[in-house]
Amino acid sequence: MAFSNLRQKKISILGSSGYGGMQLVRLLRNNPNYEIVNLCGQRTIGKYWNELFPFLKLRTDKIIEEINLDKISDTSDYVFLSLPNGVASTIVPDLINKNVKILDLSADYRYKSLNKWNQVYVSESTSLKRNDFQLCEQAVYGLPEIYRNEIKKANIVSCPGCFPTASLLPLQPFLKQGLIETDGIIIDAKTGTSGGGRIPKENLLLSECSESISPYGVVGHRHTSEIEQIASAISGKDIQIQFTPHLVPMVRGILSTVYCRLRDPGLTAEDCRIILDTYYRNESFIDVLNVGIYPSTKWVRNTNKAFISVQVDKRTSRLILMCVIDNLLKGQAGQAVQNLNILSGLDEIFSLPEVTFFP
Amino acid sequence: MAFSNLRQKKISILGSSGYGGMQLVRLLRNNPNYEIVNLCGQRTIGKYWNELFPFLKLRTDKIIEEINLDKISDTSDYVFLSLPNGVASTIVPDLINKNVKILDLSADYRYKSLNKWNQVYVSESTSLKRNDFQLCEQAVYGLPEIYRNEIKKANIVSCPGCFPTASLLPLQPFLKQGLIETDGIIIDAKTGTSGGGRIPKENLLLSECSESISPYGVVGHRHTSEIEQIASAISGKDIQIQFTPHLVPMVRGILSTVYCRLRDPGLTAEDCRIILDTYYRNESFIDVLNVGIYPSTKWVRNTNKAFISVQVDKRTSRLILMCVIDNLLKGQAGQAVQNLNILSGLDEIFSLPEVTFFP
Amino acid sequence: MAFSNLRQKKISILGSSGYGGMQLVRLLRNNPNYEIVNLCGQRTIGKYWNELFPFLKLRTDKIIEEINLDKISDTSDYVFLSLPNGVASTIVPDLINKNVKILDLSADYRYKSLNKWNQVYVSESTSLKRNDFQLCEQAVYGLPEIYRNEIKKANIVSCPGCFPTASLLPLQPFLKQGLIETDGIIIDAKTGTSGGGRIPKENLLLSECSESISPYGVVGHRHTSEIEQIASAISGKDIQIQFTPHLVPMVRGILSTVYCRLRDPGLTAEDCRIILDTYYRNESFIDVLNVGIYPSTKWVRNTNKAFISVQVDKRTSRLILMCVIDNLLKGQAGQAVQNLNILSGLDEIFSLPEVTFFP
Amino acid sequence: MAFSNLRQKKISILGSSGYGGMQLVRLLRNNPNYEIVNLCGQRTIGKYWNELFPFLKLRTDKIIEEINLDKISDTSDYVFLSLPNGVASTIVPDLINKNVKILDLSADYRYKSLNKWNQVYVSESTSLKRNDFQLCEQAVYGLPEIYRNEIKKANIVSCPGCFPTASLLPLQPFLKQGLIETDGIIIDAKTGTSGGGRIPKENLLLSECSESISPYGVVGHRHTSEIEQIASAISGKDIQIQFTPHLVPMVRGILSTVYCRLRDPGLTAEDCRIILDTYYRNESFIDVLNVGIYPSTKWVRNTNKAFISVQVDKRTSRLILMCVIDNLLKGQAGQAVQNLNILSGLDEIFSLPEVTFFP
Repeated sequence: MAFSNLRQKKISILGSSGYGGMQLVRLLRNNPNYEIVNLCGQRTIGKYWNELFPFLKLRTDKIIEEINLDKISDTSDYVFLSLPNGVASTIVPDLINKNVKILDLSADYRYKSLNKWNQVYVSESTSLKRNDFQLCEQAVYGLPEIYRNEIKKANIVSCPGCFPTASLLPLQPFLKQGLIETDGIIIDAKTGTSGGGRIPKENLLLSECSESISPYGVVGHRHTSEIEQIASAISGKDIQIQFTPHLVPMVRGILSTVYCRLRDPGLTAEDCRIILDTYYRNESFIDVLNVGIYPSTKWVRNTNKAFISVQVDKRTSRLILMCVIDNLLKGQAGQAVQNLNILSGLDEIFSLPEVTFFP
Repeated sequence: MAFSNLRQKKISILGSSGYGGMQLVRLLRNNPNYEIVNLCGQRTIGKYWNELFPFLKLRTDKIIEEINLDKISDTSDYVFLSLPNGVASTIVPDLINKNVKILDLSADYRYKSLNKWNQVYVSESTSLKRNDFQLCEQAVYGLPEIYRNEIKKANIVSCPGCFPTASLLPLQPFLKQGLIETDGIIIDAKTGTSGGGRIPKENLLLSECSESISPYGVVGHRHTSEIEQIASAISGKDIQIQFTPHLVPMVRGILSTVYCRLRDPGLTAEDCRIILDTYYRNESFIDVLNVGIYPSTKWVRNTNKAFISVQVDKRTSRLILMCVIDNLLKGQAGQAVQNLNILSGLDEIFSLPEVTFFP
Repeated sequence: MAFSNLRQKKISILGSSGYGGMQLVRLLRNNPNYEIVNLCGQRTIGKYWNELFPFLKLRTDKIIEEINLDKISDTSDYVFLSLPNGVASTIVPDLINKNVKILDLSADYRYKSLNKWNQVYVSESTSLKRNDFQLCEQAVYGLPEIYRNEIKKANIVSCPGCFPTASLLPLQPFLKQGLIETDGIIIDAKTGTSGGGRIPKENLLLSECSESISPYGVVGHRHTSEIEQIASAISGKDIQIQFTPHLVPMVRGILSTVYCRLRDPGLTAEDCRIILDTYYRNESFIDVLNVGIYPSTKWVRNTNKAFISVQVDKRTSRLILMCVIDNLLKGQAGQAVQNLNILSGLDEIFSLPEVTFFP
Repeated sequence: MAFSNLRQKKISILGSSGYGGMQLVRLLRNNPNYEIVNLCGQRTIGKYWNELFPFLKLRTDKIIEEINLDKISDTSDYVFLSLPNGVASTIVPDLINKNVKILDLSADYRYKSLNKWNQVYVSESTSLKRNDFQLCEQAVYGLPEIYRNEIKKANIVSCPGCFPTASLLPLQPFLKQGLIETDGIIIDAKTGTSGGGRIPKENLLLSECSESISPYGVVGHRHTSEIEQIASAISGKDIQIQFTPHLVPMVRGILSTVYCRLRDPGLTAEDCRIILDTYYRNESFIDVLNVGIYPSTKWVRNTNKAFISVQVDKRTSRLILMCVIDNLLKGQAGQAVQNLNILSGLDEIFSLPEVTFFP
């Protein structure tokens, strides 16, 4: 842990009372390098943070306020947007004009092409009629293990979805080095319920989803195109992914089980482990497990880590990649803070937990 | 529900105190067509059933006894074996000689070829040195929706594993009619903890597996070869399957998500639903869901049903099949009772629940 | 199971899409003695039942309709009301006038005194201004193990709350026989989340209540006065109860742990077990456990049973009673069907499960 | 967080592979003030820590060794004993002679009187025949919020049980100030499964305890006498407690709901909150909640905090205290590290988490 000499950066969190916002407060509170100056919400406007969240108290209590762009831009160096899809695009242009740097947790700037976004986020695009094409092109996809250099210089860091993070990290080395066939990739993903957010929905009640696993969004889940965009960029080829998410009766965690075919049938599981391990050797948040050790989402809960395991079926030349992350940290707010650290020139691991409490 | 005029069949349950045995007692107790005459156990010998299981009382209490083959064959028409792999093969030859019909829940007679069994169940085969080749050939694989006619005449019904049941049911119509490519089939399966049995193991403690999902037995899980054997028999081609099980923090239920490629890229999801629905029209325990409705394991909990859903990705011509069962009923003891009903000429649904209590 | 010769009774269920309504449908579907003629809902009006509930299909599908009192009274012998508190009182007077018998699952008729109801259900009473004093007096509290004879002749059966059922059943024999002191009774109760209903609330999300236990409604929970009313009636003395409910991360089940003082310090746990066992000897749905065996809510899940256990601390002369029920069955809809069976002269256990599937 | 100038203290952990030991490693690893020099186990001897626990890696890997008292005393300043009851007493006398300070997580030194221990831990005492009367008298009960000054000078700190911690903390101010009646105190406690340890037991399987709550050890649970000893010492009166634990389907957390009677019936809930708040004003790990806010075990998970809430029933003059802790941290290993910090003159909160990740 390195204490910085730089002056404290001023931080605003828009959408602070959802699960993403709560993680941001948890990570940045009492932090010598950052100061939270504004907490904005919607349903919680006017309430004191410490009364709403007695288990997550701030040293100096704050009132949750309505979004006021002038106040925010006047007082902040960095603004986290943890808002419903579509909303960020209505305020980011203003904030960028006012020279504030943006860390957006929504999908609004994840596509280089606004047209693509319009296609995927149909209902949002219909009501919004965005024309911030340029901002979409400028925004950097905030997966540091892929785009660290670009992030350093970004004005808008568009933080990736949880499923894309858990899917792209294990695939990257193999796609980049051309070791797997680019068609026929299947990603069978499993997520905890916190990915569905804090706004009450019937299917997320404990009564409904406990003692149950079920698929959802089969064929056409929005994260499919997000994964495809980045996987294609990495490999230089147009990639189509089969992606199927499942809802698991647990709070936090994503496991992606990725099936692909090796181009060289001679590669063993140990060869592939070495490829992964070498590729990610200098990454603080990626651990590659020994062959035969399979990760549990529990091992990374409440941390910013990704654990990756690999297996090979010699009979079928198929490579099976397994990756676990905490969907709210490495899959969302933790990664956003990792990006903040990069933007502000601090040690990347600052404030980010690396080891869970087990069990 | 049809009450039979036939005399009451005498039933013995060997391995009655495990989860499989408990389901059998639950299904067959107070049942006008069957009488449980012997309950045999190992760790529970000498104890009264009703004291061990105050929540699953028999009208007439019974002492759990040591296995005595003479007593069992003298008093039983049908014997359920719910014993560890390998043990059934040490007593089935005797029981068959004594004209008792066998419903085996273990893997001992699931392969037509004893050599294959020896290869897959290496440790068991090493210590046992079986030579009951003929019984292996005679035994019928107890999946009624595939082998109903053979089951009617069987002496040994070898009840399928839970994963094979949940995998073969959705695949059967497509394999039989040659609608899918037989290579490249991937089965990503998810199971509750009760599949691991009642003998305490660290990884099955609530402390360990709650708030967690993880893969296990990646490449080479024993059920792979069992699925391959039957899938090959159905299709007439040699099929290799990629099968990956995952442990889910819930008690009962299996979901298998099956990925394969359509040979005719023009087929829609609705076409495939009709194919399934037509194929299983007369089956009491199989429900095909409308396209876009994805099943939850909770929907079949404590029932003998399988719910199947289908989706097609037009971009990739990939067919995605999803099937849920209760691993202890349709995946184990319920299916065994279904086979008993077939063997004894009763209505197949007798004693078998079809509708869950939700939530 | 006794098949009745009486003509099929016609049943309407108002509020069919909540958890209570779903249990009623589950219990009464495909039932030779009863025919469901109307299913009424609110958010689900106009939808087909079998599309909404593919896991709980009716042989003949029905459309969920708006409440039409004329149609309901013309076609029904018995009407179940599974509606929010206050709503039943707006329609029961009409239905009673039209000679329909009522089984109300809400709290509207649980108090003999409407004034008392007005005190306890303050917000409901303010907006409603009820004046059905007489109906309140006429209505019978539907706990068959206490008021079976009165239920037989009732026009309105007001089915008890889940906590009162789990609390009064163990207390009854001791209160009635004057064996415990009537002051100082403490009930520490624990409930699963399904008691909170199906309408989405933040605190009932799996993300929030999983891995968590917490008290709620400490001092002044509405069920306190309901328990007090009946306990006082049983004992003939004015009783004040300390009642504290807790929310447990599970779907179904209530456990009440009841602390009271024996008047005769010489009574042993075994004495008290015999008192309970003798008192409830002829009750189908009450099992008294051996001393030293403590019940789990899991043992009664999906059944209409109550399991009671008793312990005595000789040092303190304190009697500890423990009772488990399924909150949606013996605590709600199952008990309502038990009352229906009593009303219609059928065997009380008809359609009501007595044994769970374990685990 | 204060970095100390003192030389790094050398730490040994005996029983490192159980849940208690794992928490100690988690808290002390990579810690500038402490160095873990020995990890001893039983079933894990000879294995590398980092292979067994890939999710809890040490910067410098260590082999888990057999207990060697000479090596341990030669190399350690402090020894944590996380061993089964009875075992500590066989090695503590030796270690004390060799001038090592002991932090014992078992019950061996929790009673001032060895005779009392012999009475409560009957089976252990029968096989052991301890005679370390003096060590029992010397040992200090390691609840810093009660015995901080004694702990500073202790050679043996006997860390409290999880239930006593959660029960004594809310009671202390009221007992000490004579505000409650000392007879008739009832503690209804609820615990997660991790309190049962990591050694596999049937009743702790997810299959068994999920979807279930049940009491256990009703009347006579060993922690009763431990609570009574300290409560009596605080109040100066001989106190008998009614204590009933319950097993809840969650991993971590204890909630104790404590019922007692106010001596002054005029005290309000707010008065009692102020009493608590004032008493614990300077304690880092105790938070008193506003009246009407009830704590969830989830709020303290993975922290060393205790959250206390209070309510008063004016009708009955009854005081209801509710306290939540993480059973493995404030209830076990976290408290042990708090004691270590006190013993070694460091800031008490060093290394101990105060804020959870929610949800």
